[in-house]
Amino acid sequence: MADIFERLVKNYGPIGEHRDRSHGYFSFPRLEGEISSNMKFNGKEMIVWSLNNYLGLANHPEVRATDTQATADWGLAYPMGARMMSGNTTIHEELERRLAAFENKEDAILLNYGYQGMTSLIDAVCGRHDIIVYDAECHACIIDGMRMQLGHKFVFKHNDMDDFEKQMVRATALMEKQGQGGILVISEGIFGMAGDQGRLKEIVALKQKYEFRLLVDDAHGFGTLGKTGAGAGEEQGCQDGIDLYFSTFAKSMASIGAFVAGDKTIIDYIRYNIRSQIFAKSLPMAIVVGNLKRLEMLQTMPELKEKLWQNAIKLQEGLKARGFDIGNTNTAVTPVYMKGGLEEATAMCMDLRENFNVFASIVVYPVIPKGHIIYRLIPSAVHTDEDIETTLHAFEVTKKKLDAGEYKVDQIPDMHIAKSDV
Amino acid sequence: MADIFERLVKNYGPIGEHRDRSHGYFSFPRLEGEISSNMKFNGKEMIVWSLNNYLGLANHPEVRATDTQATADWGLAYPMGARMMSGNTTIHEELERRLAAFENKEDAILLNYGYQGMTSLIDAVCGRHDIIVYDAECHACIIDGMRMQLGHKFVFKHNDMDDFEKQMVRATALMEKQGQGGILVISEGIFGMAGDQGRLKEIVALKQKYEFRLLVDDAHGFGTLGKTGAGAGEEQGCQDGIDLYFSTFAKSMASIGAFVAGDKTIIDYIRYNIRSQIFAKSLPMAIVVGNLKRLEMLQTMPELKEKLWQNAIKLQEGLKARGFDIGNTNTAVTPVYMKGGLEEATAMCMDLRENFNVFASIVVYPVIPKGHIIYRLIPSAVHTDEDIETTLHAFEVTKKKLDAGEYKVDQIPDMHIAKSDV
Repeated sequence: MADIFERLVKNYGPIGEHRDRSHGYFSFPRLEGEISSNMKFNGKEMIVWSLNNYLGLANHPEVRATDTQATADWGLAYPMGARMMSGNTTIHEELERRLAAFENKEDAILLNYGYQGMTSLIDAVCGRHDIIVYDAECHACIIDGMRMQLGHKFVFKHNDMDDFEKQMVRATALMEKQGQGGILVISEGIFGMAGDQGRLKEIVALKQKYEFRLLVDDAHGFGTLGKTGAGAGEEQGCQDGIDLYFSTFAKSMASIGAFVAGDKTIIDYIRYNIRSQIFAKSLPMAIVVGNLKRLEMLQTMPELKEKLWQNAIKLQEGLKARGFDIGNTNTAVTPVYMKGGLEEATAMCMDLRENFNVFASIVVYPVIPKGHIIYRLIPSAVHTDEDIETTLHAFEVTKKKLDAGEYKVDQIPDMHIAKSDV
Repeated sequence: MADIFERLVKNYGPIGEHRDRSHGYFSFPRLEGEISSNMKFNGKEMIVWSLNNYLGLANHPEVRATDTQATADWGLAYPMGARMMSGNTTIHEELERRLAAFENKEDAILLNYGYQGMTSLIDAVCGRHDIIVYDAECHACIIDGMRMQLGHKFVFKHNDMDDFEKQMVRATALMEKQGQGGILVISEGIFGMAGDQGRLKEIVALKQKYEFRLLVDDAHGFGTLGKTGAGAGEEQGCQDGIDLYFSTFAKSMASIGAFVAGDKTIIDYIRYNIRSQIFAKSLPMAIVVGNLKRLEMLQTMPELKEKLWQNAIKLQEGLKARGFDIGNTNTAVTPVYMKGGLEEATAMCMDLRENFNVFASIVVYPVIPKGHIIYRLIPSAVHTDEDIETTLHAFEVTKKKLDAGEYKVDQIPDMHIAKSDV
């Protein structure tokens, strides 16, 4: 007989297997001090490129003051229970109205966390006869939502419109064969790893040809794209064709929670049938009040988004001018693609941190194919020209060392240098 | 061709279908003012029995002061990103150590929300060859976690040990036939609807006979059961046999988030492989600091749990003395079982609110069989003797009216009386 834990503790997975050496450094690092472009890591001040604090709201004095006042007013416990049972307030409803208006939708509902919100949203909308057609690079929360579904799912190659149509033809034929069910298409406003926008306008245009509803996860687009910051739908001029517009508050809003907006009839249905909200506690009031403030600032301070884009363009142009490959990004998300082995990636990333005071997150095998390295840089409105210049210089120098084979080492170095004792 | 939304907006579900009349009253009510045993509903002061604020920590002055100070210190945005990437702090780690010590386990990890924490925990532990054996009354988050799993699941009748063994025999046979995989048993410390404890001690004893690991959701037991408040495992003297001890912070802790505790090896595995935590934002620091304070109070102020139990016993004895059926509860959760139609239930519940100032949540068809009514009362350490006496009187009077057929009406009355205009 077998112990269910036995298999697990024999293989801690792609990141977990390195935990003895990497914990606290590459995995579960502690970034200390006030959220900004410069924070402490292992006791040293570093330029940080890992936070989705796009608009710099996380530590804005007005946000901080609102958060503190809201917590003084309400505590962090109120309200208790699920929205449907005992956790509803007029302020939750007010934030829903403002989000709906901002996204040019009839109605919206708050979700107490983005991950479970999306997972459960897909579950609320799809029945066993419904068919999902989704982009291959959709986020983990979308994948998990689909895993709960018994209906058929068709994946299309990332942003590949030919393949999208191919899958739509298959899905439509299956739907007709079944004689029941409908089709839900799922894509994202911005794909968070590569920084390219979902081809939403083209997908929406195909509503002329195929019958489907469109759900868009715009986690990275909300606040960063579109004239008013309303996201990828506004940016591409196809907001009306997005039937369910979803965003977390964990990026531009520098908070927690999420929302979904759409026509009143479907939002009302979701409000009364989404399991993760019916069976779990409401978003705390202080966070709702804080989110109202963040939304107001996002709407009334266009200079934040402008500054974000100035910085993103400076960073991206600087990288390109130095010969770096930043792929297809057309948003603030800035991936930097390199070639090198796992040990080289490790040594280079440490060099950046220890000798150049640049803290950047890195993606390697097995998340991406062997021999590839991706740095994922997230510029924000609070990064300075000096932050960008220092970082460009650091990447230039370390990339030369990488290409010259200087990071080739027999062993991964011990990462526990200067481990924080805070 | 069919529109996927069409089916949905034709049937808003068991609660949603009544939304035109019930929204804001029976569903999505707004309880206003400071969390206590008395709050405002539709502008009137009411005795509230719907909040899982067991120990009265939600609005305790020390908790409020800590929450406010923590938010002043850290804001509500810090840290950003997932624990594994950029959202880790020494305070998160400190709370994990304290929770593990309190639960007499080697290690623990924080989960950013209870619902997705549990869902994803089951997912992290179970592979396609593993088998789940679970109690029929497990919470929605457990059900959703299992829905993501491809392996076999066997349900046993609620707290029925004969049926548990029957399912274990089936599961064991299947496991042997498969030649791989293990068995995970899932139950709860307290079943939140009926208030009976899971028969954990008996399940643990059967480890002598069957090979399995035990996961317990102790959402309602944490802080309310056991000598030190460590929960149902401590209460029943079988904590060592619980391999994964889970609780949300949304009940006794009057907060958000959750944790799971167990042996270091398996917790480390989960830490590196639980999708809802790897791919979603860390619990905000102010909430972590607030939870450290709540845990300290829960551990050092046994008078809170004593008061809860005094109140629970007063309420339950009072109900029994008046002939009410409160089922098998052996915890603070107090269900009151009655018979009556949907309209009668509605009219009685309104009478309780409007004329007796007693706010209680009600469960009716189709959640339970037609003709049955369950009130679910949650006593807390902040309820007063007067609250209890008033409520007992109110139930006595309204039950007589129910039995006399006085609530039989042709139409459900309009619930929008005195709708709050706040």
